[in-house]
Amino acid sequence: MGIINVTGYAGVELARLLSQHPDVWLTSVTGRSTAGKKLCDIFPHLNSGDMIIEEKLEKVDLVFSAMPHKESAEELIPLLEGDTKVVDISADFRLKSADDYPQWYGFTHPAPRLLEKAVYGLTELYREQIKTAQLVANPGCYPTGAILALAPAVKSGLIEPDIIIDSKSGLSGAGRSLSLPTHYAEANEDTTAYALGGHRHLPEIIQELELLNKKFSPSITFVPHLVPMTRGILTTTYGTLVPGKIAGGRSGEEELNVLYRNFYKDEHFVRLVESPPHTKQTLGSNLCLIYPTIDRRTSRLIVISCMDNLVKGAAGQAIQNMNLMLGLPEEAGLEALSIYP
Amino acid sequence: MGIINVTGYAGVELARLLSQHPDVWLTSVTGRSTAGKKLCDIFPHLNSGDMIIEEKLEKVDLVFSAMPHKESAEELIPLLEGDTKVVDISADFRLKSADDYPQWYGFTHPAPRLLEKAVYGLTELYREQIKTAQLVANPGCYPTGAILALAPAVKSGLIEPDIIIDSKSGLSGAGRSLSLPTHYAEANEDTTAYALGGHRHLPEIIQELELLNKKFSPSITFVPHLVPMTRGILTTTYGTLVPGKIAGGRSGEEELNVLYRNFYKDEHFVRLVESPPHTKQTLGSNLCLIYPTIDRRTSRLIVISCMDNLVKGAAGQAIQNMNLMLGLPEEAGLEALSIYP
Amino acid sequence: MGIINVTGYAGVELARLLSQHPDVWLTSVTGRSTAGKKLCDIFPHLNSGDMIIEEKLEKVDLVFSAMPHKESAEELIPLLEGDTKVVDISADFRLKSADDYPQWYGFTHPAPRLLEKAVYGLTELYREQIKTAQLVANPGCYPTGAILALAPAVKSGLIEPDIIIDSKSGLSGAGRSLSLPTHYAEANEDTTAYALGGHRHLPEIIQELELLNKKFSPSITFVPHLVPMTRGILTTTYGTLVPGKIAGGRSGEEELNVLYRNFYKDEHFVRLVESPPHTKQTLGSNLCLIYPTIDRRTSRLIVISCMDNLVKGAAGQAIQNMNLMLGLPEEAGLEALSIYP
Amino acid sequence: MGIINVTGYAGVELARLLSQHPDVWLTSVTGRSTAGKKLCDIFPHLNSGDMIIEEKLEKVDLVFSAMPHKESAEELIPLLEGDTKVVDISADFRLKSADDYPQWYGFTHPAPRLLEKAVYGLTELYREQIKTAQLVANPGCYPTGAILALAPAVKSGLIEPDIIIDSKSGLSGAGRSLSLPTHYAEANEDTTAYALGGHRHLPEIIQELELLNKKFSPSITFVPHLVPMTRGILTTTYGTLVPGKIAGGRSGEEELNVLYRNFYKDEHFVRLVESPPHTKQTLGSNLCLIYPTIDRRTSRLIVISCMDNLVKGAAGQAIQNMNLMLGLPEEAGLEALSIYP
Repeated sequence: MGIINVTGYAGVELARLLSQHPDVWLTSVTGRSTAGKKLCDIFPHLNSGDMIIEEKLEKVDLVFSAMPHKESAEELIPLLEGDTKVVDISADFRLKSADDYPQWYGFTHPAPRLLEKAVYGLTELYREQIKTAQLVANPGCYPTGAILALAPAVKSGLIEPDIIIDSKSGLSGAGRSLSLPTHYAEANEDTTAYALGGHRHLPEIIQELELLNKKFSPSITFVPHLVPMTRGILTTTYGTLVPGKIAGGRSGEEELNVLYRNFYKDEHFVRLVESPPHTKQTLGSNLCLIYPTIDRRTSRLIVISCMDNLVKGAAGQAIQNMNLMLGLPEEAGLEALSIYP
Repeated sequence: MGIINVTGYAGVELARLLSQHPDVWLTSVTGRSTAGKKLCDIFPHLNSGDMIIEEKLEKVDLVFSAMPHKESAEELIPLLEGDTKVVDISADFRLKSADDYPQWYGFTHPAPRLLEKAVYGLTELYREQIKTAQLVANPGCYPTGAILALAPAVKSGLIEPDIIIDSKSGLSGAGRSLSLPTHYAEANEDTTAYALGGHRHLPEIIQELELLNKKFSPSITFVPHLVPMTRGILTTTYGTLVPGKIAGGRSGEEELNVLYRNFYKDEHFVRLVESPPHTKQTLGSNLCLIYPTIDRRTSRLIVISCMDNLVKGAAGQAIQNMNLMLGLPEEAGLEALSIYP
Repeated sequence: MGIINVTGYAGVELARLLSQHPDVWLTSVTGRSTAGKKLCDIFPHLNSGDMIIEEKLEKVDLVFSAMPHKESAEELIPLLEGDTKVVDISADFRLKSADDYPQWYGFTHPAPRLLEKAVYGLTELYREQIKTAQLVANPGCYPTGAILALAPAVKSGLIEPDIIIDSKSGLSGAGRSLSLPTHYAEANEDTTAYALGGHRHLPEIIQELELLNKKFSPSITFVPHLVPMTRGILTTTYGTLVPGKIAGGRSGEEELNVLYRNFYKDEHFVRLVESPPHTKQTLGSNLCLIYPTIDRRTSRLIVISCMDNLVKGAAGQAIQNMNLMLGLPEEAGLEALSIYP
Repeated sequence: MGIINVTGYAGVELARLLSQHPDVWLTSVTGRSTAGKKLCDIFPHLNSGDMIIEEKLEKVDLVFSAMPHKESAEELIPLLEGDTKVVDISADFRLKSADDYPQWYGFTHPAPRLLEKAVYGLTELYREQIKTAQLVANPGCYPTGAILALAPAVKSGLIEPDIIIDSKSGLSGAGRSLSLPTHYAEANEDTTAYALGGHRHLPEIIQELELLNKKFSPSITFVPHLVPMTRGILTTTYGTLVPGKIAGGRSGEEELNVLYRNFYKDEHFVRLVESPPHTKQTLGSNLCLIYPTIDRRTSRLIVISCMDNLVKGAAGQAIQNMNLMLGLPEEAGLEALSIYP
């Protein structure tokens, strides 16, 4: 396996998880400013011996790209012309319509035909396609939490198209690049909303909810927030129940629970919980916890999800996808329990 | 001035702010388990000299009660039969309907007639009544942020009754009493939602939004969250614009801004801001920052407010009310700037 | 395997690590207030299926006790009369002299003869004895960090007996029991020293340093501090170089490094590092990082160690000991890399 | 008053405190990258109206410089040729010997004669000289805590010259400039030591302890640590009691306390406390809390101090000095109580 740009938080988390994977070997990693250095000098926790961060990736069977958008596509296109399998952590192959790239990411997509070929890597929704894909577009962290929270309700037509998604993310989601908002003394003891004008993860969420239910034309407001912790995303989603679909009161809640449990009944990494979940319950694990409930006073659906943004929200899900692409058990290398407290 | 139950976080914050007030003197404080001890032995930062925590309050002109609900009413009723002025930090006189107390607080209200007499102490809405009130019911921390965020839109009929209120609070809002959810190792590096079945601050929010607009019968979902910081509440509110009330696009945003700026134009402690506010910008101050905007994709109103939950959300607002009740300048003792970073 | 008192942080961390151990099975756990409940209802992250928290331990080959001191001895004495192997996380069998218990722990030791039999479970120092021990007294978290930092210098007679140990611990070290100092709003954004009159871990440190060098009669000042994080202990130790033992300047530093590297050259879980270590580099792993250096201006030895207090400082080391007692590879179940960031 | 380089944390804290000062006016502030912008656009909490950040300071009576070292001297030398009073927050005039600058700060001092003229601004030690000084060199944050902790013991010859200073600082002490060690996800949940080779604050500490007692030639090891909080420094100092100077046991502790209380008996901002102090008890205030004690087992002196590094450790002390230089009450503008919790 290889990792392009191992030096961001998603890249280094990939390296950590792959080091502990029973069936695959990490053989080549690249970085930009750190090329030529030993991986374990930059990241001592990896215990990676003499592995060097290279400028150019060696030949590998499967490559993960943790490059920023645009550059990721540029690096991957030559590889995709061969038979290298690719899991792209960037956004470059997530959107089906090339037209969305100029608007949301500010560049013209260099290979629109690859967008058709790419499989959206939300494993729980696209497991079969992922197994045979050459190119998997690993979802963004916010979309993973939001779509998993909403998929059962949307697919079953349970809610109206008006949806509010209010997400609270730890700071590692903002990456390893320095910035004033992620400077410790600024971010600590602070909570704020951002990207009110439209976060780049929004088109991804809309696209996937539409694909889940062809009759569904969602009107989504998505507001991400930063909260002072390192890892974790908690997403609170609000929808309006379509009248007549589900009973009122307690029995409606039970129906809802059955619906969600059935939807995810064979999933190893999605767990329905009986009280509002805590991000701490997912720290370091590949779990997504989901809590669906009904606000009985207003007949509103509330679904809360949480996960570790760097595992299920990035590197863990990427490995889950790799496992499928290589015919390995989906859980391989991802069985670690959450660290508590 | 006197404080009943100085030993919770609202009580001790009152003591801090009163110590620095130019026009009034704190002369008597009570506590339960700490009665008989010196105030500065329990709270060294207060620099309170020889002041003793008493079991029974001495005679004072105005009393703040920071007792838990039910007990607060019991302590205050005898005082209210005399001419002592009262600012009650508890919930015991916030709700106009005595019928709400058994449902939300689990006790039968001992003095329903006082509910009529009590003025809801959201200073910006009830300034004139507060000036002549004997009994002011200081608002809850969540309601202060939510009502200030929504009042201009509700009063002007700008939004539909369907409202989502998603609040993120620091841990001091959960009080000084020990509990597992507020144990450091449990709360640190964690975000969670709670009180999904209906938080006690909800009826207060509904009552006040209804009073702002008689034609308005709000259907409110309120979900509070705990985020790992000590002070601060950020509240994100979502509403649907009534069609035809406000222009679309950028000019609608400007109209919205004008509406909000006019509504709060004479307010010293409410400040309209031009980018999403940070709780850190209010730490230690009596400010409430408000950011109204429109999600143009969905024509949804989003208003974000934030404040220090122990100042504008509790003790600061109580002193703001006291100032009015005593004919003092409203800002007296409340001019401290926020601590940054 | 069994765990007595699974509900504290050391106990639940044992359960987590044992669940992931390739060679052993956790079959019985006990708790007090939680007896009768499902383990995964109290600790959802354990994914422990139907395992029930029992009042009384079932028959197991090896038991871990995570009981408070005194009670731990009382529970274990009957088991030790049989052939059950025991790793005691409490302090009850750490001190060789029964006379120390009344002074430091406030009780008369119920089984002084077991103190002779017990092996102090600092694996790196007592590996051979642990292999055949029935009873291993798992070291305290502070002693583990302090002794590993000082052992090479003390054993080789490099430093004078005057030693300062200044430790900085995260809050999980203070346990899961509620207290005001561990209440989130009190502990967050705070650093403080405590136990200046003599922390209970001091006699353990003195005993072990004396045993390392019979000519050494240490005079140790140990000051523990609490810093606002969940996991991690950083220990900064200061000693005075015995004149003539080591060269001055840079070559002395090299000699020192060689000495330390040799001392720990076969150790899997002790790693010498070349710059001051970060507690974050050990989060969730069984590593102890050690950085020895010389303050050239004063010819003082400074050795800094750090580790995850719940892993190498408690549950991880307990499993390391169990592995030896059962003839398993010492690293079994303890290979997880640190979580970063 | 004017502030050169208002945009670092010391500069903006000066602006906050001066805004609330009853007797002086902030009339001019400068910044580099932010010149031309409104101060309140960069720091909304300052509520500074239309004040603009200028490139060049206007004429003022007294100027604070919060520039980095070397640049500060360059900016101040022309002003010092006139009669402008100066409080320099940088290190440029703290050291008496010009020879120390190349070694510790890497530049040749441009005005060695000003070093004689400068008064070291540790107010408690140099009050009289500060009153008539044109140039005050405001101490570093670490030296303020360390010297105040040790001064009474050193001056009275109570301890041997061998001293250990172990400091724990919040991240705001590392400034507002971006760096990987102060990136939130790196610094959060982490404790580490740094500058083991010799921190720049060390020569300041040595110089001042020597000046306190001419017979004293201190041998100091100083190790600063970063702990995950925004504000606060806790300093733990260790010394060896000179035999025969003080009684043993409890009565020695009482003598020590009397000595310290007498030394600081007229000080408004230094407070002796009876249990180990918490940094939280100083948040936002100009207090330095000091706790002296004796480790009776080893006859070692331990003195712990703590303060808010941006107030008593920087901007607050600068204003304390300004007050003296202008003939104002020393406490003016510095009376705010600490924020708790």
